[in-house]
Amino acid sequence: MTFEGYFPVWDQLSENQRNRLLAALTLRTAKKGDILHRGGADCTSLFIIQSGQLRAYILSDEGRQITLYRLFDRDICLFSASCILRSIQFDITIEAQKDTVFWVIPAEIYQQIVQESTELSNYTNEIMAGRFSEVMWLMEQVMWKSLDKRLAAFLMEESSIEGGPELKITHEIIANHLGTHREVITRMLRYFQEEGLVALSRGTVKILDEARLRVL
Amino acid sequence: MTFEGYFPVWDQLSENQRNRLLAALTLRTAKKGDILHRGGADCTSLFIIQSGQLRAYILSDEGRQITLYRLFDRDICLFSASCILRSIQFDITIEAQKDTVFWVIPAEIYQQIVQESTELSNYTNEIMAGRFSEVMWLMEQVMWKSLDKRLAAFLMEESSIEGGPELKITHEIIANHLGTHREVITRMLRYFQEEGLVALSRGTVKILDEARLRVL
Repeated sequence: MTFEGYFPVWDQLSENQRNRLLAALTLRTAKKGDILHRGGADCTSLFIIQSGQLRAYILSDEGRQITLYRLFDRDICLFSASCILRSIQFDITIEAQKDTVFWVIPAEIYQQIVQESTELSNYTNEIMAGRFSEVMWLMEQVMWKSLDKRLAAFLMEESSIEGGPELKITHEIIANHLGTHREVITRMLRYFQEEGLVALSRGTVKILDEARLRVL
Repeated sequence: MTFEGYFPVWDQLSENQRNRLLAALTLRTAKKGDILHRGGADCTSLFIIQSGQLRAYILSDEGRQITLYRLFDRDICLFSASCILRSIQFDITIEAQKDTVFWVIPAEIYQQIVQESTELSNYTNEIMAGRFSEVMWLMEQVMWKSLDKRLAAFLMEESSIEGGPELKITHEIIANHLGTHREVITRMLRYFQEEGLVALSRGTVKILDEARLRVL
């Protein structure tokens, strides 16, 4: 499938706008683990995912991480070009969670067209509102939910993304998703294991009792 | 000052758009403590503050609160009309923190004009990006900062809003801003008092040592 099918308001852009987009566009690939964007100083371009998976997270001064949201096929990554909005004042890191193929649109071209096209501007509003909603969901989790519930929810989500109960994931990586320390996750997973919810082995968490995990 | 001076992209709207806004507009007043908006089901209108102060917060199932951001003179409250964006999926409550005079713009009129005017659409993007930044700041606080630091920052902020060191505020209200329990705030404020940072009396927190509070 070509770029036209991935860009949301393509039909509502003018011939001229489409040509400018196509001329500025590049297709890139990233390996799992590659950092595609690092904080606010690095404002280069928007990404549109053809296939793969990206993760947006924030970093504390001490290097702790928490995942804000994940992006999948057809998703648009707006905040890698956060400079197109003056009012964005936070630093997000974008990492490839799987090998990813994505289109890169230079920030200045997107910004030009957003200033001409009410449709693209309104669509940009919708993208941002969607991300905002994900961050608000996370905020509610962090504020009101205990870590055992958040870990259970994360394992269920991961299993649904991977399409099976056996998750190849380290305790360190889970800790980075949930904004806590590895030791805390290890302790909680051992408790889950004792309760018969999961089975642990090197680099793998296997979900044994999905029903009880869901209740949690 | 009239509405024209408060509405951000007024000069860039057409005569017809301005007239539709003016015809739909009402000026309202709220008393301190009034709830102006309650969650996502209640999508009525945008507010533009002429004078006063509003607070946007989220509520847990158990009734705990945490302040997301506050709005002052000239600020636009977008999320009281969150239905204009399909992707907004969180519930915010808006409360008057002081007696407030504000204009009310019906959501459907704003939505009509946003779909016609690229300038208003881009401006709406900027408002949302600004609120998003405030929530991201809060997220970083909640994730990485201990409560003593957050309480110190809140007292400094409150003192700068009120223009003096003597804050008429209860421990309950502080707890509702910071998303914790009253007892926790009382304990922390007593510790601050022992350290000579603040003086406590009924319904009042007086900042004694601004410099050390700022360091904290």
